[in-house]
Amino acid sequence: MTYIADDIVCEAPPGRIEGADAYRAFMGPFVEILRGAEMIAAFGDDETALVMYDTATVPVASAPGAEFVTVEDGKIVRSRFVFDRTPFQAAR
Amino acid sequence: MTYIADDIVCEAPPGRIEGADAYRAFMGPFVEILRGAEMIAAFGDDETALVMYDTATVPVASAPGAEFVTVEDGKIVRSRFVFDRTPFQAAR
Repeated sequence: MTYIADDIVCEAPPGRIEGADAYRAFMGPFVEILRGAEMIAAFGDDETALVMYDTATVPVASAPGAEFVTVEDGKIVRSRFVFDRTPFQAAR
Repeated sequence: MTYIADDIVCEAPPGRIEGADAYRAFMGPFVEILRGAEMIAAFGDDETALVMYDTATVPVASAPGAEFVTVEDGKIVRSRFVFDRTPFQAAR
């Protein structure tokens, strides 16, 4: 959470997540099932970054995602997050 | 389909799509429900591009996606495509 701003706003597939506490609650369960990640592509400029990566998780072998983040004062203040929820729901 | 190579390989949420005909069959139904699109971020270099955009479709008001494409001789030969299938399945 070092690079997450206290007032982060994250637009993710389940909806809008506001604040570092809510972000931690959203990401925590994912981090627990994460086995590995591989960068597919990463670009950025002084204030923003756009990345795509593949993740390997316990329930889903390949779960790619993409994130567009905005950075202020060295912390992520905004994140737009895209991934397919379908295989995770199917694995439940 | 002007910029799609005949031998395009697209890795999309439903699986691997090989060839321009299969790509057309995959994208066709989406194009028919597409109402508009707005670029969220776009980066690239000489051979690749990484984009994130939001789309408005008939069944789903906001359906963001991300694509990482590789270009050869002016055509897309490879595409890695991420979007959330969940709202489309829910709208069926």
